[in-house]
Amino acid sequence: MVQKRLKLSRYIPILQWGLHYQAADLVGDITAGIIVTSLLIPQSMAYAMLANLPPQMGLYASILPLLLYGIFGSSKGLAVGPAAVDSLIVGVGLLQFATRDTLEFFMLAISLAMLVGLLQIIMGVLRLGFIVNFLSYPVLSGFLNAAALTIILSQIKHIFGVQLPRSDNFFIGIYNLIQSLGQTNLVTFLLGLASIGLLLWFQQNLANILQRRNFSPSVILPITKAGPLAIVILGTLTAWLFKLDQVAGVKVVGDIPQGLPALGLPNLSVEIIRELFPLALILSLVGFVECIATAKSLASKRGQDVDANQELMALGMANLGSSVTGGYPVAGGLSRSVVNFSAGAKTNLSSIITAVLIAITIIFLTPLLYYLPQACLAAMIIVAISKLVTLETVKSLWQYYKPDAISFLATLIVVLVAGIETGILVGVMVSIGLYLLQTSQPHFAVVGRIGESEHFRNINRHEVQTCPHVLAIRVDESLYFANTKALETYLIQAVAKNPEIEHLLLICSGINFIDGSALSTLKKLIADLESRNIKFYLAEVKGPVMDGLQRGGFVEYLGSDRVFLSTDCAMKALECV
Amino acid sequence: MVQKRLKLSRYIPILQWGLHYQAADLVGDITAGIIVTSLLIPQSMAYAMLANLPPQMGLYASILPLLLYGIFGSSKGLAVGPAAVDSLIVGVGLLQFATRDTLEFFMLAISLAMLVGLLQIIMGVLRLGFIVNFLSYPVLSGFLNAAALTIILSQIKHIFGVQLPRSDNFFIGIYNLIQSLGQTNLVTFLLGLASIGLLLWFQQNLANILQRRNFSPSVILPITKAGPLAIVILGTLTAWLFKLDQVAGVKVVGDIPQGLPALGLPNLSVEIIRELFPLALILSLVGFVECIATAKSLASKRGQDVDANQELMALGMANLGSSVTGGYPVAGGLSRSVVNFSAGAKTNLSSIITAVLIAITIIFLTPLLYYLPQACLAAMIIVAISKLVTLETVKSLWQYYKPDAISFLATLIVVLVAGIETGILVGVMVSIGLYLLQTSQPHFAVVGRIGESEHFRNINRHEVQTCPHVLAIRVDESLYFANTKALETYLIQAVAKNPEIEHLLLICSGINFIDGSALSTLKKLIADLESRNIKFYLAEVKGPVMDGLQRGGFVEYLGSDRVFLSTDCAMKALECV
Repeated sequence: MVQKRLKLSRYIPILQWGLHYQAADLVGDITAGIIVTSLLIPQSMAYAMLANLPPQMGLYASILPLLLYGIFGSSKGLAVGPAAVDSLIVGVGLLQFATRDTLEFFMLAISLAMLVGLLQIIMGVLRLGFIVNFLSYPVLSGFLNAAALTIILSQIKHIFGVQLPRSDNFFIGIYNLIQSLGQTNLVTFLLGLASIGLLLWFQQNLANILQRRNFSPSVILPITKAGPLAIVILGTLTAWLFKLDQVAGVKVVGDIPQGLPALGLPNLSVEIIRELFPLALILSLVGFVECIATAKSLASKRGQDVDANQELMALGMANLGSSVTGGYPVAGGLSRSVVNFSAGAKTNLSSIITAVLIAITIIFLTPLLYYLPQACLAAMIIVAISKLVTLETVKSLWQYYKPDAISFLATLIVVLVAGIETGILVGVMVSIGLYLLQTSQPHFAVVGRIGESEHFRNINRHEVQTCPHVLAIRVDESLYFANTKALETYLIQAVAKNPEIEHLLLICSGINFIDGSALSTLKKLIADLESRNIKFYLAEVKGPVMDGLQRGGFVEYLGSDRVFLSTDCAMKALECV
Repeated sequence: MVQKRLKLSRYIPILQWGLHYQAADLVGDITAGIIVTSLLIPQSMAYAMLANLPPQMGLYASILPLLLYGIFGSSKGLAVGPAAVDSLIVGVGLLQFATRDTLEFFMLAISLAMLVGLLQIIMGVLRLGFIVNFLSYPVLSGFLNAAALTIILSQIKHIFGVQLPRSDNFFIGIYNLIQSLGQTNLVTFLLGLASIGLLLWFQQNLANILQRRNFSPSVILPITKAGPLAIVILGTLTAWLFKLDQVAGVKVVGDIPQGLPALGLPNLSVEIIRELFPLALILSLVGFVECIATAKSLASKRGQDVDANQELMALGMANLGSSVTGGYPVAGGLSRSVVNFSAGAKTNLSSIITAVLIAITIIFLTPLLYYLPQACLAAMIIVAISKLVTLETVKSLWQYYKPDAISFLATLIVVLVAGIETGILVGVMVSIGLYLLQTSQPHFAVVGRIGESEHFRNINRHEVQTCPHVLAIRVDESLYFANTKALETYLIQAVAKNPEIEHLLLICSGINFIDGSALSTLKKLIADLESRNIKFYLAEVKGPVMDGLQRGGFVEYLGSDRVFLSTDCAMKALECV
């Protein structure tokens, strides 16, 4: 029975922390819940705007998903909900299938959330979390930079109060923006600029001021994080007082339907699934990567671990929850999670509290948001997202490992020019292609003995001793189909350059496996060497490789007296000491 | 001047062997030229039939291409011309764009030869020959098996004298064949069966008989290889004597236009290029792989080497030549090359002699081929191609290295079911995917000292000595984005399982490079370990990896006293002796 509950609580973590809830954790959880709510109300509406969706869909996506994540999530403190990059993917991606501001567009977003949820749950059940390992850091970083730039560009038009023609190409977008600057709405522009200034002041100066006046960190945090809330209140009041929407043409949020969303299943016809599948796949992976990266960084602060596949399933449940309550795809973003964590969240109860507070807001408070200017929401997005622009990364990537810089730039540029799906695909292909290129051109070293030791190193880098009749070569790569030709070419040339040798010793410390193509190349090579009266030997073959060579009959073919445990043993046997 | 001619002769090898031609080589070259001609006349017509093209196109593809390869080819003895697998690709591939037996279909084949030639020359100039390294042996073998099975199935209908509906799917093809067996033309069937029997007798029994009667090998070879010629003569005589085409409905070759082909440029509009590009790419690569594999096996018998990029360009010239003289894509096949070589070809003069003899044939002798039954040609193809069916390979692949067997089967099945292009693409993706999967799950070994030596090996495989306060782990893989997570998980678990350790030593003999993602994972790991009071060390870092770590500031970060030349040095410094 205990055994069974332990197992169940692995899949439903609330059974674990809920049943052992400590009263001491309550204050932290409630405080964090309140602070995250004050951040989430404006953010969820802003991100919905970014996704070309009405503001209430952002709020809807902030109730049931948080509740479900609170139940199924294994990471303590992760704050799920609408997220910037995911909103961009929804907003840009769905334009292929429906016109913006239509019911069809909104319905597709709801269907998309369902599909993302299902994909994530399936991947979690099949334990496919490892797939994200193939999204390298440079590809992810290139994508995030491109997404951030695209998001900023898409929001700047709200700051200037202008309309732009739709464009998938970032550079054409910039051109369009410059073209349209003549139509700037001055009042909107001033409102936007003031909002950005105030947000930056909250972030950068306020903490310093409060610190100098010796406020405690637990007071400073909620105040400095109240920037968005302050903007919402100030912006709404200004627009309401001066009736800016009618007098100056400032765009405001307008009517938000009051009351909780109705439950309902979205349309998931075969045709819609086929249309939305690529988008859903990208959203599931990107959402999962964000979530797992955030969860890991939170967990490591507590010295805990994260179960990747459980996180996938919890995120999937959250997306299903979003879909059945009229929301759109959600993820677990870093910035809100850090706030949650710093504000004292100890368990996922803080998520559940946030959900309840958002529900109360949508039942009672939405009329108050009528006059909230869109420029204020845009300002929040721009300030939040501009931290993701880290183009200078490319310099350090280039310096340490050039293929990383190439993958980064390829992803960045293709996402900016040809869109998200193509960009990520190209980025993954470039990073894998460069890896294959690297492993297809192995590094070889002719080695010799260092001093009197049993250690052998590259003759070009170290002071070593060698013998004329033995050529000891270390190959620094596993042998597989893509580098068999390079191996063959190198060894044949090395033998041709050293006509006096009688023994060729291949040191296998860098060989982690040998595939069938490489094995038959080795056999051909050995026959070729024998015909030139050169004997072939192996040393330092690792256990798993040796198992394979024995199974494949290679050791028998070569002769077991030709395989040495260490280079030292081999050299002694070949009378090279 | 001498310098310049040397350089030029690298690109036009005839300048080298032609100017230094030895009279002693002449007999061998002439004999080989004649024998290959007798083989090539029926083969070229048979392969043209396989490509759904009229027989004269096979002959046209056997004149200028051979002449041009004789001039530009670096391999001595390679016999280019129509080849079985390439003909299949042409025949099946072009059905997507044109109806068989139409002028449009034939013109596309001619355009395709031009495109293949251009691609091969471009790849040769850009030195892209290395691309074929990524076509692994199992993928190639799976493809060849599938192609051979498809070819045999496509020819069996000529043996039975039945018509089949077109199908890309091998298994549906078999079903169709069985359905249509009721319509078998008995005379055609007997003719086909007799041809197959005679060909097998020539191949398998005749050589033994002649050997027992003490004929010399130089006499046995031309006689045993005369099987196809014998079939052509006997089949044509039989059909002519009994007027089998009119009396029994036996399909014969019919009229072949007499005279040399007219020179002309094919249509290469943008639209045609776009249509034919995938097919042309596959043909250039497959043709190149066949050619280079054959050339290498011939060269190794003479202890010579082959210049892959020069071969690409020579093959490209041959294809251009085929295109401008109304032929279709050519390649350098193994079987005819082996005959050429065994018959005594010493230089590419034998190719040029064959070209002249084929030209004479097409000017004077084509009327004699009117009554040649198609069943005889089909019999030749079936007997020649059945040697390529080596399905039993999968057993040894599976035994030695399972991913090889999986790549083989995936390619085989997808080519049979979904066609050549899809099949090769899937095969390449599967083989690369399995390689990535393998490298994303590295092998780790905790090691200890073997006896009193300086050699350290896996504690689970060898008798070794260890110390409780030092954990020495060897990771058997280069560290890159796909396996950083596996590294992290393993090391954290290893540390948790050994709470008494103070020092963690990572032995890098199996690490051939470390990318940026892995480097930042290492940094995080080190910080994590430090917080648990465990010190981290590296040993046996290879030169190129060390260069990178120094450039990236990692050695400085870790402390240069934490990096040891050898495991032995590290263990001594950590007082574990």
